[in-house]
Amino acid sequence: MKIALDAMGGDHAPHEIVHGAVDAANRLKDVSCIFLVGDEAAVNAELAKHPKVNMDRLKVVHAPEAIGMDEAPAQAVRKKKLCSISICMEMVKRKEADAMVSAGNSGAVAASAVFTLGRIPGVTRPAIATALPTRLPHRPTLLLDAGANTDCEAIWLTQFAVMGATYSQAVLKQPVPVVGLLSIGSEDGKGNEMTKKAFQLMQKIDVNFRGNVEGHDLFMGEMDVVVCDGFVGNAVIKTAESVAKAVGYWIKKEFFLDPVRMFGALLLKGALQTLRSRMDPEIYGGAPLLGVPGTVFITHGSSSHRAIYHAIIAAAAAAANNLTDTITKRIAAMEVMVADAPPAQQA
Amino acid sequence: MKIALDAMGGDHAPHEIVHGAVDAANRLKDVSCIFLVGDEAAVNAELAKHPKVNMDRLKVVHAPEAIGMDEAPAQAVRKKKLCSISICMEMVKRKEADAMVSAGNSGAVAASAVFTLGRIPGVTRPAIATALPTRLPHRPTLLLDAGANTDCEAIWLTQFAVMGATYSQAVLKQPVPVVGLLSIGSEDGKGNEMTKKAFQLMQKIDVNFRGNVEGHDLFMGEMDVVVCDGFVGNAVIKTAESVAKAVGYWIKKEFFLDPVRMFGALLLKGALQTLRSRMDPEIYGGAPLLGVPGTVFITHGSSSHRAIYHAIIAAAAAAANNLTDTITKRIAAMEVMVADAPPAQQA
Repeated sequence: MKIALDAMGGDHAPHEIVHGAVDAANRLKDVSCIFLVGDEAAVNAELAKHPKVNMDRLKVVHAPEAIGMDEAPAQAVRKKKLCSISICMEMVKRKEADAMVSAGNSGAVAASAVFTLGRIPGVTRPAIATALPTRLPHRPTLLLDAGANTDCEAIWLTQFAVMGATYSQAVLKQPVPVVGLLSIGSEDGKGNEMTKKAFQLMQKIDVNFRGNVEGHDLFMGEMDVVVCDGFVGNAVIKTAESVAKAVGYWIKKEFFLDPVRMFGALLLKGALQTLRSRMDPEIYGGAPLLGVPGTVFITHGSSSHRAIYHAIIAAAAAAANNLTDTITKRIAAMEVMVADAPPAQQA
Repeated sequence: MKIALDAMGGDHAPHEIVHGAVDAANRLKDVSCIFLVGDEAAVNAELAKHPKVNMDRLKVVHAPEAIGMDEAPAQAVRKKKLCSISICMEMVKRKEADAMVSAGNSGAVAASAVFTLGRIPGVTRPAIATALPTRLPHRPTLLLDAGANTDCEAIWLTQFAVMGATYSQAVLKQPVPVVGLLSIGSEDGKGNEMTKKAFQLMQKIDVNFRGNVEGHDLFMGEMDVVVCDGFVGNAVIKTAESVAKAVGYWIKKEFFLDPVRMFGALLLKGALQTLRSRMDPEIYGGAPLLGVPGTVFITHGSSSHRAIYHAIIAAAAAAANNLTDTITKRIAAMEVMVADAPPAQQA
């Protein structure tokens, strides 16, 4: 499996990105090559800091440009043809890479994916699918859209449901993914105008739809896929991270207040490590952009080398499954409904 | 201060509601009377269970009807004129009570408030304002709307901002409340169509507006008021509660796995109590419905006696401040903008 990695994307690039790639190249057997795409000199300088590097599996690909985290996505992608994100995407298109991973400007990654790779036939809008940890260690909930589309139409949510269910089945190995619609009450009639329409449509398509779910249900481990518009999804995910961070802050503050408590915390070291790993978004491996014909993974802007390492694992796993064909077929199967949808627009 | 309490509202009514009222009557000096509004026989049966009851401060008011948690709000309120919620509201209207508190169907409380009390002049839609705990012990963030309005127009959010800032100043004693607009990026241009419009309007009104904020910012203690539409607000609050609950579940599971850990947890007993109280939504005292001429507090459907007790404290504090007059004046001051708003509609 060959991965194109955006070495310039994210708050800690290229340092943490290169570090994550070095770890992956040294440890992962099924990743035959990681292309480090970015400023050649900067990437090589980072590589030189690592005493042990498996250079058989790492290749530096020069990208003369990079897109900043605060640049307007579509414009930046149009203007900077030779940016690291677009070069990664071109490599996926030419099948030189099986997947691409970026911790950069997520809007720019989504825009570049649509410009370069296009969309899977029938998909109106690609969506970012983020895996959230739940009470059950091996059953994350996939929330989509996590931020690619701020204003959604009801029909798009049915496509998100099909794409999410396909990913859950093929990559996360859930045999019959349970799908929910994020709303503000579990009763059938609850929601806003858009979700009420989506509720009606969801009942007609070929997914295991369980109706409306609430914020409460996201972390219970009873849902495999939850769909919502990208504004809500983004707000929910950032809120969840924020609460986890606040709790971590309080634990740190309270558990180390005096020597007795510090001794107690020492006895609970293992428990605290488990807790931290459960609450750690970095091991969830980034979020696939579903709906484009190619494997594109977006990770958090604040990604450390651990996040990059886990995203490479997840991207390789996704690329090993033929998602594009399956999504194409399943979207085509809902074509009667898609025919009612508004014409596809460029993102 | 006299409080009308809906004894029939919530998942644990009338048991927990009466318990909370008894505690408040026994302990709170500035609450001269709590009216327990509900089925007289059921309420008296609950009162009989308490050995010590300050009956000078408790009065039972019979309500022959009650609204269920899953009834359609507006219809139920229209049909059941003698339900406990509507009788509480009538008492507020007739100034027999200074405030009302209900753990019942929040939609029905909001509908009944608008039907019975009307709206503060200039307010298009009342909003539920929920106080969220933050990193800083004495600086909660007020999030509104928390669920009264699922589909909002941009202008409504400016009214939410003014009402939230007024409450924050008068009741939570923040001298110059900092106001944010919930979005999916802190940059000015980020958001959906509605929030982008709201962003423009927010800059023109008389609040200390700090621009877009994200889920990340909700628990940092840097914002006093954050506005959003009721769908997003509700999803965000339920998500936050859900994460806190999941963390609590993991802590319980991991900290009591073996005797060594249990001893560690024993040494951390005080810290765990502090942590629990920080994450406990019950002590935040319910949420005021802002925009109606009267003090109306909505608490969680799952409210225990502690939640009711704290909601009575919060409602009394809110009633002691002349919010209606201040909100009327501040909304009138933005009348140029309100004139551009669509005509007021019945909730």
